[in-house]
Formats: sequence, C-alpha cells, structure tokens
Amino acid sequence: METNAQTGKQTGSRAGSVSPAIVLVAPQLGENIGFAARAMGNFGLRDLRLVSPRDGWPNEKARAAAAVAEPIVADARVFETLEEALFDCNFVIATTARPREMVKPVFSPETAAFSLRTRALSDQRCAVMFGGERNGLDNDSIALADAILTAPVDPNCASLSLPQAVLLFSYEWMKSSEPEVLGRITAFDGPAREGLATPGTSPATRAALFGLFGHMEEALDNAGFLRPLEKRPTMVRSIRNMFHRMECTDQDVRTWRGIVSALTRRPTASRG
Amino acid sequence: METNAQTGKQTGSRAGSVSPAIVLVAPQLGENIGFAARAMGNFGLRDLRLVSPRDGWPNEKARAAAAVAEPIVADARVFETLEEALFDCNFVIATTARPREMVKPVFSPETAAFSLRTRALSDQRCAVMFGGERNGLDNDSIALADAILTAPVDPNCASLSLPQAVLLFSYEWMKSSEPEVLGRITAFDGPAREGLATPGTSPATRAALFGLFGHMEEALDNAGFLRPLEKRPTMVRSIRNMFHRMECTDQDVRTWRGIVSALTRRPTASRG
Repeated sequence: METNAQTGKQTGSRAGSVSPAIVLVAPQLGENIGFAARAMGNFGLRDLRLVSPRDGWPNEKARAAAAVAEPIVADARVFETLEEALFDCNFVIATTARPREMVKPVFSPETAAFSLRTRALSDQRCAVMFGGERNGLDNDSIALADAILTAPVDPNCASLSLPQAVLLFSYEWMKSSEPEVLGRITAFDGPAREGLATPGTSPATRAALFGLFGHMEEALDNAGFLRPLEKRPTMVRSIRNMFHRMECTDQDVRTWRGIVSALTRRPTASRG
Repeated sequence: METNAQTGKQTGSRAGSVSPAIVLVAPQLGENIGFAARAMGNFGLRDLRLVSPRDGWPNEKARAAAAVAEPIVADARVFETLEEALFDCNFVIATTARPREMVKPVFSPETAAFSLRTRALSDQRCAVMFGGERNGLDNDSIALADAILTAPVDPNCASLSLPQAVLLFSYEWMKSSEPEVLGRITAFDGPAREGLATPGTSPATRAALFGLFGHMEEALDNAGFLRPLEKRPTMVRSIRNMFHRMECTDQDVRTWRGIVSALTRRPTASRG
C-alpha cells in the first residue's frame, strides 16, 4: 500500500482494494490473536492492529496459532491507545455481544460487510474493532465507532469467542465480493449510495474527529458544562455519539472547530 | 427429542425443529471439540456426534473449552465408526477444503444451510461431517455423503480450523431461520422443493443405505467384479457415490436389494 500525500488516503494497487482493518482492543491470549489472524487470512483480510495486547508483543503463541496466516501476525501494528489505532480511518464499526444503550446503527455481519464493501469501493478506510476476551469493548471504545456489529446468536448461548467473532465478519467480507453483491452495491450509484450523502466526499478521518472531540470537550470543561463530574463520562460519550451519527466530512470538522472557537472567544471591545 | 416408533424419526416439539447433527470424525484436540460445541451452541445447534476422538472420551479440555456450551459436550454421543454415527440420517454433507474428485453437489455454507433447512422442514434428519485437524475427511468418509460443503476461502490461506469450519455452517444455519429465507423455502412447495422428488417421501436412512452397500459389495466381490484389488477402494467409492446421487427412498433401497438378490441367485432348475 502507498499513501497519497495529498489526501492522506492509502491507495491500493487498484481502486476499491482497500480492505478493512481488524482492530483487537486489549486482547488477552496470544493464541486468540493468532486464530483471529488466521480467520482474517482465510477470507482475504491483511491489516491487523492491536491495542495494548496483555502479554506484550511480539507473541510466540500468536505466531504459532496463526499457522498459514503467520505473515499477518508478523505485520501486525501495535498501538498504545485505540484512538491512535483508528487515526487513518473514515468509518469504524464496534462489535458487541448485544446492542448497548447507544444510538448507533446496528449491523449484522452481513450488512456490516455490505456497508464496508460499499465504502471500500469509494476508497474509504474502515475498521472493525473487537474487545478483549473477558469483557468485550467498554463503552468509551464503542463511543468512538460509527456503528455496532452484533451477530445473530442464540440468546441462551450468546458469547462468541474472539476468533469466532473475527471469522464471521471476515467471512461476510469475502462473501460481499461476490458478483451478485457487488452488483447490488454499484446499482446504488449517486447520492443514495450508503455513507456518501454527497458523492465524492468521505467521512473525516478519526484523527480529525478526535481533534474536534478534544477541542469541544476542553471548551465544555472550561464552561463548566460537563458537571457533575460523575456524569462527565456519560455526557462525553453521548456527545461523541452524536458527532458520529453526523458523519462529518473534513470540511464539517473544520466548521465545527470554528464554531467552538467562535463560541468560546472572549467578547472583544467591538462587541461590548 | 422423542422418537416416533413407527417412522423411526425423531420428532421435535414442533414440526421442522429437527436441527442437523454435527459429526466430528477422528478429531484430535479436546479444545477444538469444545470450541466446535461452543460454535454450535452460539447458533442453536445441539446434536454433537464424535467418531473415534483421538484422546478418548469424556475429555476435560473439551468441556472447559465449550464454556457456556458445556451441555452440548456433556450430551455428545461417541461412535466407533462413521457409519454408526450416520445411521439415522436421511441426508449427509461432508466438508472439505477443496472439491474432491467426486461427482457430488458442492455447496457453500449458505447453500448448504438452505438445503438442510428445507429438509428439516420436511422432518428429514441431516448431518454435516468434519474431518480431523490434520488431514480432514478421507475419501472413504466423503463417499458416504450426499453433497460436499466448501467455504469460499482465499486460496493463498485456505485452511480453516476445525472450530471455524463448524462455526461457518452453524452461523449460516441460524441465518437460514430468518423469515426472508424461510419464505423462499416455503415458496417452493410441491415437487420442486429441493430434495423431495416426490412430496411426502424422504431419502432412505443411512442404516438402510449402508445395508445395501454391504449387500451389493459382497455380491460384487463374489462375482469377481471388484478387481484388481488395488482398484477396489476407488471402485467401491464410485459405486457408493452413484447411489448417493440417486437419493434412494426406503422403497428404492428395498428394490435395489431385490435386484442384487435376483441377479446373484443361482440358476434354478426351472431357468435351466
């Protein structure tokens, strides 16, 4: 992959070849990282990102469990924070065992793959994130996503293992490359195509959006809005979720930063 | 599940509730048996059958790996031969990493689930079998199946782990219960419905079919047909595969046994 210096987008060898990244957040067992990599490889995914793997990195058990997919483990990138892992992404999906109390679109593995395939064909960089084995993703991580992915499991036996969850998305990703599905996607040309309210535009990268979050939350802290302190985390997540639902472009992010700056500017003499 | 003494069929609490059995043939690692059971449980499957598990049974590692699906491991039935494990089945699918040189229908996980859902709605008992970790199913095992299931994997990284292969079928099985899919199945009423050349009939159970195989092969051995000996296994598989493609009913099996008996009867005085 090369990066286009002007747009910051990675450009594959041909248009639409940018496959989603799989982001494992605080994974515990090396074996599960390896099994997840193998599931990715089985279905043509390559970009593995790890956020704070519990047992450090590199991990020999991950390498062994990956088997034929060992190169994916070797090329995995490790990040200290989830935010850094998502910086170059235009659209992010969080996987959860059950829908959380957040207002976000909820996808099945199949509809998630369809949505991301549509975006990939417009050269958007996407990611699907998975939480650690014990508790899955926490609410702060989910608040960084545009949408939620939940598999249709038996409610009496709902807990999917980490590699199994990665497999289901990866499998549906490969299925979404079948001609019948691609035909349904390209039939939606123009403004109706999902995730492209205006043709030719992309959602802002996470780097731009996280910059806005920091700016906005600092301003609201200074204004005493995020009080009482015990309610601050919920309020922050709720505001972030509203921004995700807006699907801001880079221009939208600049507009919002201008709005925050304008609203927090001290009154000048000319105004008083 | 109760068994109807007249038909020998298991009857669920409601019509069409008979879910396919998952048959693991010579599985090696207890963990993988447990992970496979968990994948079954995630998607509503319950009937686990093991043929000659390498490390014996019960297996503590299988129980631990199954997690919430532990009851499936506890209820698993163990058989010495694949034939016994399939005795009550009307339709059997073999999973392979790639299509083998056998003339059988080849299904994707999705089309396999659609086919078995159709049969389940007609109270046919079906099974999907998976080979051991090292080599998958051997050709003699595949020759006992009506169809082959192959997942659409990346050819550069084609080897699915045993639990992952079980997961994909199980996931598609659950998806096939969605109203949209059920609607497509029931729309095919009458003779056109897959696997039911004559409405109201079912393929013979494997017990009946295996009886015919034994009868036929003994007759052919006695007739000196299955020679030279080094070609016998291939010839036997080829003949079995032809019978599977016929989808014999119980009546068809009786007819064939009559044919074999008639052809091998020593000439009587009246004929000479």
